[in-house]
Formats: sequence, structure tokens, C-alpha cells
Amino acid sequence: MGLEIERKFLVKNDAWRGLVTPVVMCQAYISADPERIVRVRIEDEQARLTVKGKASGISRAEWEYSIPVEDARRMLESVCTPQQIIKHRYRIPYAGFTWEVDEFFGANQGLVVAEIELASEDQVFEKPDWIGEEVSHDFRYVNANLLKQPYSSW
Amino acid sequence: MGLEIERKFLVKNDAWRGLVTPVVMCQAYISADPERIVRVRIEDEQARLTVKGKASGISRAEWEYSIPVEDARRMLESVCTPQQIIKHRYRIPYAGFTWEVDEFFGANQGLVVAEIELASEDQVFEKPDWIGEEVSHDFRYVNANLLKQPYSSW
Repeated sequence: MGLEIERKFLVKNDAWRGLVTPVVMCQAYISADPERIVRVRIEDEQARLTVKGKASGISRAEWEYSIPVEDARRMLESVCTPQQIIKHRYRIPYAGFTWEVDEFFGANQGLVVAEIELASEDQVFEKPDWIGEEVSHDFRYVNANLLKQPYSSW
Repeated sequence: MGLEIERKFLVKNDAWRGLVTPVVMCQAYISADPERIVRVRIEDEQARLTVKGKASGISRAEWEYSIPVEDARRMLESVCTPQQIIKHRYRIPYAGFTWEVDEFFGANQGLVVAEIELASEDQVFEKPDWIGEEVSHDFRYVNANLLKQPYSSW
């Protein structure tokens, strides 16, 4: 098991654009229950099945397994909830950390968030200039919730 | 993906006992939704995470992955629904097939069912004398349903 400790921020301008090339991610959920999330994600030609436990603050138990892309495609077609999250992920190195900027499409078009994964809840890090308001505790930004209540409906 | 094609029967006497030694299985569900089942199972010192699609007759899409036993234990403790299925499984060879006899414990104590996995829905097979009534189409016997409505409550 991994413990996922993550902080999430809005992005206040476009200064991050052009720094790196994004990967395309397509993901959907077998379980979108916030206490037991099961996510299928395809990123380029790799796929993963991820189980996440209930969040406690900014931490959450997480187990992730590589699976054949063909399995993931079939699950997205048949067993997952029909809505999918489609996003571009930009992995931007900054001051010893990697910021993951997610630019959403489809029903969440217009939404851009940046995440940083930490080793402990109180780990100190430097923020790039383009990082805006923190939304770590705003459940609307949880990807499984963005499926049910997409950004365009806010 | 595998396609799981299975027929399920009650067991009408104890003639199958003593033929083989059982393994102990302990399983629970991250999703018990019959259209998208996610099961965690520990069998002896092996563990598997299984995704099952919606059943169509006696067939169902199934994807199964080996996972570390420690991951499975943590999931059973934290992320799965609290009820668990505990059963002994007897794998009994008969006329070229393997019959899986499941003897349930806990809230399903007293229930014994036998399953046979087929390559096609119409595949012909011979039944041992101890095989009783077919229950393939009786959803009460689906393990994910036995959690919600255990045999002792029927």
C-alpha cells in the first residue's frame, strides 16, 4: 500500500504552458464511492487499475497495479460508469518537486488544477508563481466527483 | 479479458466430502454492484483482485490480477465492505472437468454449492451423483449477494 498525500491548487495564469509536453489521460471509475474508489486509467500506451481508500485530510490509502491496455479499454467500454475524465497532464519539475498540472476537457473543459505529492502532510515546498488558491479540501475537485458534477455545471 | 461461463448447482449429499482437501478462501467486495463487481480474495497465501462485468445469462466478463497478500489484507480491513465471505473450496476432478464445491461459513453457514466452469454456454458435461438442483440463474447464490442477504436470513 502507498499512502497518497497530495495538495491541490488552482492555476492563476498560463505561465506553465509550453514548459513540458503533456500526456493524454483517459480515466473512468468502476467505483466512484469516495470511501472506496476504483479507477481505470489509460495514459499513452500504459494502463493502471487503482484502488483508493477513504481520504483523511490530504492523505488517502492507495494501491496501484499495471494492467494490460486492452483490459483497461474493455473495462472503460463495458464495466466503468459511462462518464470519463479526459485530461492532459503536464509534469513540471520545480524546486525539487514535480507539479502535475491537469487540464480537463469534455464536461470539465476550462478547469486546470495543479497537484503536488508529498512525503508527509507537513512537508515544506516552494510554489511556482503560477500557483493560485489551494483547493485540497474542496471535494468538488476530486476527479471522481468531477464525473458526477462536472465543472461546466458549477 | 476472460469470459467467465459458469453453471452452479446445489449439492444433495455428502458423497463429495473426503475426496480432496479444501483451501480456505476469504473474500470481500470493493464494489458489490452486480454490473461492476470488484472482489478481493485471499486463498491460502495468494491474493487476487478481480473485476467482473454485468452477467449475461451464465456468462460474465472477468479480469483477474494477482496482488500482494499484504495489499489484499489491508483492503479487506479498510476499503472493502465490512462483511466477508468465508468458505472452504474443494476442487474435485470429475470426467475431465473440475468441480468447485464451496462450503460457506459465518452468516452463510450450511450453504454448499458446486460450480463448473465451461468453455461455452452449451458445453456438455457429466454430473457426479452428488450434484443437485441447478441454481445458475438464481441471483441469491451470487457471492456478492450472499453478503447482503446471507443464507441464514433466507
